Amino acid sequence: MTVELVNRILEGDVRTAARLMRGIEDGAADAFGEMADLYPHTGKAYIVGITGAPGGGKSTLVDTLITTFRQRDMTLGVVAIDPTSPFTGGAILGDRVRMQKHSTDSGVFIRSVATRGWLGGLARAAVSIIHIMDAMGKDIILVETVGIGQQEVDVTRLADTSIFVLTPGSGDAIQMMKAGILEVADIFVVNKADLEGASRSKMELQAMLGMKSGACEEWEPSVLLTEAVNNIGIEELVDEILKHQAFLVSGEGMEKRRKERARLELTEAIESSLKDYIDSNVDKAFLEKLVDDLVQRRTNPQAAASQIIGKSIKR
Amino acid sequence: MTVELVNRILEGDVRTAARLMRGIEDGAADAFGEMADLYPHTGKAYIVGITGAPGGGKSTLVDTLITTFRQRDMTLGVVAIDPTSPFTGGAILGDRVRMQKHSTDSGVFIRSVATRGWLGGLARAAVSIIHIMDAMGKDIILVETVGIGQQEVDVTRLADTSIFVLTPGSGDAIQMMKAGILEVADIFVVNKADLEGASRSKMELQAMLGMKSGACEEWEPSVLLTEAVNNIGIEELVDEILKHQAFLVSGEGMEKRRKERARLELTEAIESSLKDYIDSNVDKAFLEKLVDDLVQRRTNPQAAASQIIGKSIKR
Repeated sequence: MTVELVNRILEGDVRTAARLMRGIEDGAADAFGEMADLYPHTGKAYIVGITGAPGGGKSTLVDTLITTFRQRDMTLGVVAIDPTSPFTGGAILGDRVRMQKHSTDSGVFIRSVATRGWLGGLARAAVSIIHIMDAMGKDIILVETVGIGQQEVDVTRLADTSIFVLTPGSGDAIQMMKAGILEVADIFVVNKADLEGASRSKMELQAMLGMKSGACEEWEPSVLLTEAVNNIGIEELVDEILKHQAFLVSGEGMEKRRKERARLELTEAIESSLKDYIDSNVDKAFLEKLVDDLVQRRTNPQAAASQIIGKSIKR
Repeated sequence: MTVELVNRILEGDVRTAARLMRGIEDGAADAFGEMADLYPHTGKAYIVGITGAPGGGKSTLVDTLITTFRQRDMTLGVVAIDPTSPFTGGAILGDRVRMQKHSTDSGVFIRSVATRGWLGGLARAAVSIIHIMDAMGKDIILVETVGIGQQEVDVTRLADTSIFVLTPGSGDAIQMMKAGILEVADIFVVNKADLEGASRSKMELQAMLGMKSGACEEWEPSVLLTEAVNNIGIEELVDEILKHQAFLVSGEGMEKRRKERARLELTEAIESSLKDYIDSNVDKAFLEKLVDDLVQRRTNPQAAASQIIGKSIKR
C-alpha cells in the first residue's frame, strides 16, 4: 500500500502528493508514517527561500521566477507559507491567484501552507511538503514567506539559497537588520526598482552588509534590482541563484547546509515526539490540578514540570 | 541564603533583582532555583502588553504611560523585549534612553531583554523577569515588544491587557490582521493622531473589528487616538486600561487569563526540562551519527528521534 503510494509520488502524481500533503496538514498519523517511507527519496531538489514584507511585489516576483526557471527547462515546486487569520480565511492573499496561470503546467506544483497556530519555530508540515515536492522530482523548490521576523530567519535554515525582497524607501532594511535577517540572506532583491530611491536603497543595503566585515564570510551577498511586473532583472536573479548553488556545491557549503538542516529536522522530530508523548501519557486531570496549584501559588512551574516528567523519564 | 535573597526582592531591592535577572538571562542554574522560591510571591501585579511596528512612537507612548501611572500613585515595572542584532548590539533602540528620566524614580524599574536566538515561542527569561518585578511589588508591569508577528501574539498570552499601537496610513492594520493580532488585542491605539488619516485609520480598524461579529466576545476592543509626543490621549488610555482591568476582575476573565498563563508556563517548563534532559543525556557522538545517517538518507527524522527518545522515556 505505502510502496504504491511512494511510487506514485516518485512518478510525480499530483493527486497522490496533494492527498498526502492534506494528511500532513491535518496531522494524520499515517501521513507521517508515509513521510518516513518517502524520506530516502528526498535530498535532490535545490531549495530557494524567498521572503520580505507584504506589499513588496513578492508574488509577482515568484511568478516571473517560475516562468524563467521553466524557460530553462527546470521543474518547480512552490510552497507559500501563509499567515492566515480566521477573519480573512486567507482571502487577503488572493493575489496569489495570479500564479494560477502555471496550473496547467505539469512542471510546476504550487501549494499554500497555513501557519496559524504554529508556535515554536519551523513547521513540521512545511518541511514535509518540501520533502514531498523533492521526492516528486522537482528541480527547484521555492519557499515563500511573508513578513520580517523569526519565521523568516527560520526559513533560511531550510533553504540552500535565501533571498530577501525589499522595496525602495520602505524602511524594510532596518527591520531586516533588527530581525537578524541581514546575516542570513544570500541574495537581496530591491524590487519595484522603478520607484524613487531604488539605487539609494541598494547602496544603503550594501553599506549595512559591509558592516559584517568582521566575520570572514566566503559568499558575498549580492544586492540586485528588479522590476518584477516588467520582467526586468529576473534573468539576472536566476543567474545569481544558480551562481550561489555552484558556489555551495564547489565548496563545503552544500554539505554544511544539508547537515544543519538534518540536525534541525532531528531536533524538531525529537521535540514533537516528546510533546506527543507528554500529551498522550500525562493524566489530564493531574495536569489541570497542577495548573490550579500554580494559579494559587501552591507550587512553581519548575516543580510542577518535574512532577510530570518524573513519571515519564528514566533516571 | 535564598530566603535572604527572596526577602530583599520582596522589599524591592533593585540591585538584588537586577542580579537575579542577569542570572536568568545567562541561564545560570541557581537563578532558576531562586525563581522557584520567588514564585509563591507573584501573581499580584497587573500586566499590560504593548506592541506594534517600529516607528510607531511606542517608546514615547510607554514613557508617557509611565508618567501618568506614576501620577496616579501606581508603581511600575517595564520589560522591553528587544530584537537585537550582532550588527547593532541593540544600539538601534537607543531611543529608549528617553525613558532614563525615570531612572531616579524608585517607583519605576525598567529592564530590556534580548530576544535574539530565542526560538520556540515565549521566552523563559521574559516570564521570569515579569515575575521578579511582580514580587518586587510593582502594581503595573508594562511589557513592550517591537514588531507584528507571532512573538507579539505570544506576548498577549502573558498580559492581562494587550495594547496594539499603529500609526495613521501605515498599513499596520492589514499586517495585524494577517498576523492574527486583531483577535487578541484588548485596546488599539492610533498614535501620531495628528498625522493625516488618523480618523480613517480608526474607522478602518473599527470596521475590521466589526468583522468579528460572529464571535460572541464580551469585551469590545476599543480604538483610541493618541499623540504621545504631545501627551494627548494618555489619560484616556490609562482609564481604558483600568476599565479593562475592572471588566476582567468583575467577571471570570481574570481567572481565565491567569489560568491560561499558568498552563502556558507549565507547558514551557515541561518542554525546557525535556530539552535540557535530552541535551545533557544524549550521547553527542550518537546524535552526530544520526545526523550523518539523515544526510545520507539511511534513516528518517522520525525513526532517528525514536532511537534517541527510546533511551530516555519509560514505555
